[in-house]
Amino acid sequence: MERERIGFIGLGIMGSRMAANLAAAGFELTVWNRTTATAEAWAAEHGARVAATPAELAAESDVVIKIVVNGEQVEEILVGEHGVIAGARAGMLCIDMSTISPQMARSLGERLGEHEIAFIDAPVTGSSPGAEAGTLTIMAGGSEADLKRAAPIFDVLGVKTVHCGEIGQGQTIKVITNAIAASNAAVLAQALIVARGAGVDLAALSEVISGGAADSRMAELKLQPMIERTYNTLFRLDHMIKDVDLALKVAADEGIPFDYAARTRELMAEASAEGFGDVDFAALYEALQARADGAP
Amino acid sequence: MERERIGFIGLGIMGSRMAANLAAAGFELTVWNRTTATAEAWAAEHGARVAATPAELAAESDVVIKIVVNGEQVEEILVGEHGVIAGARAGMLCIDMSTISPQMARSLGERLGEHEIAFIDAPVTGSSPGAEAGTLTIMAGGSEADLKRAAPIFDVLGVKTVHCGEIGQGQTIKVITNAIAASNAAVLAQALIVARGAGVDLAALSEVISGGAADSRMAELKLQPMIERTYNTLFRLDHMIKDVDLALKVAADEGIPFDYAARTRELMAEASAEGFGDVDFAALYEALQARADGAP
Repeated sequence: MERERIGFIGLGIMGSRMAANLAAAGFELTVWNRTTATAEAWAAEHGARVAATPAELAAESDVVIKIVVNGEQVEEILVGEHGVIAGARAGMLCIDMSTISPQMARSLGERLGEHEIAFIDAPVTGSSPGAEAGTLTIMAGGSEADLKRAAPIFDVLGVKTVHCGEIGQGQTIKVITNAIAASNAAVLAQALIVARGAGVDLAALSEVISGGAADSRMAELKLQPMIERTYNTLFRLDHMIKDVDLALKVAADEGIPFDYAARTRELMAEASAEGFGDVDFAALYEALQARADGAP
Repeated sequence: MERERIGFIGLGIMGSRMAANLAAAGFELTVWNRTTATAEAWAAEHGARVAATPAELAAESDVVIKIVVNGEQVEEILVGEHGVIAGARAGMLCIDMSTISPQMARSLGERLGEHEIAFIDAPVTGSSPGAEAGTLTIMAGGSEADLKRAAPIFDVLGVKTVHCGEIGQGQTIKVITNAIAASNAAVLAQALIVARGAGVDLAALSEVISGGAADSRMAELKLQPMIERTYNTLFRLDHMIKDVDLALKVAADEGIPFDYAARTRELMAEASAEGFGDVDFAALYEALQARADGAP
């Protein structure tokens, strides 16, 4: 079976690593990036054509993959003047791996469907190390047939693809699970402040948490950075605020309170206001420490 | 080296299993339980003397271990009329494996010290399966020398003994980590309510959580029971309320807010009021479900 030609849009922290894995796996790539110089440098290194516009990219691709910062960018790239729809043929598959609202994913799916373009929303987790190693988890919403078509691509990018249901449900699960992760990190941060106040031996605390009832992926990844107050950026705080906002919107649309996530959002906003927005979201700890220190 | 004679007080869900492991390991045991019939039945099965009072038990023991429900029981058993102190000789070691306040642990340590009785506070985690299998985690507060003396006993009861610092610090770490666990469970419960409301495929949600950023020991143990709303009791809700109250007291004593734990305490109290007090604390989910269903 001949491999489909891929158009890849968005060569940021995640996208550049994911596209590199596709190139290394032998896929023929055309790329586009908002900053053209980035696309040209990437194409020179990995071997790809650079398209002048998303429309041009779509014209030479069977499958278009996008991973950009937010829903506004996704929308512009798809339906803007020189957007993907302007250049696409019927039968194309569009895979959006950005994190956007489930509502927008459904709406884009409908608009693409009117042009007989198939759509999958497929946000990912695993941060940049997962993108680089090809070990992402992919949460895909769309039809069985479209997921089957995308499988050779997903197999290169990730270790686990979960079919979450219809278009939009990949996003719903992504933002809910990110809200859980952020809230677990916030619980841990608050407990750490209490432990410090009570004179607890923090190495003993870590040892008890590890493998015990209080353990979590967040404890594995974020407790030591919080103890040392040195944050290696795996996932930016401001991006996590965006994801938690989307989860709060899902909850609000259903009229369901999600107050742990709302509280976590407040703490992250405080830490962001204190200058930690570009730092790993473990730095939400700093908002609590500032309060404990009696900062204004 | 001759093995120390053990007096074991409290043959409840945890204690009966822990004492059975000590008996099986060849320790010579005297037991006491508030309900005498329980002690007699246990002794008949596992081979032990039954003491008439804690004082009598102490008189024939080198090491006294207690695991009972709360601080009031611990205090009565130690310093009550026919309590441990009344029968103990200088040089005895008393190990309290109940969960009590760090403050009370320190105070009991002082009072026992006046009688030259050594003290370790050594609460445990791992629930009844861990007690049965001898795979508890033991959080011990006390002197290095006393912990060394207790090591042959702890090695039978648990797989991991963490020296948490001075007397009382075992309790502090225990209650803080239990507050983390309960809060992680509450975050998960609330996220599950949102997911149900948004029509999420719950099997897909589980699959994404497992091994991902939102994963936790609580997700491993409690998500499926919450999805099925069928709770296998590993750790009773009312006991968890007690532990979280102790964590809130640690925080309050230091003047530090611990609002995730406070919120979790509220949810658990609601679920307890709805009749789930004797059920596993995963049933805190029911408080949220009742609200989502619009119950009064």
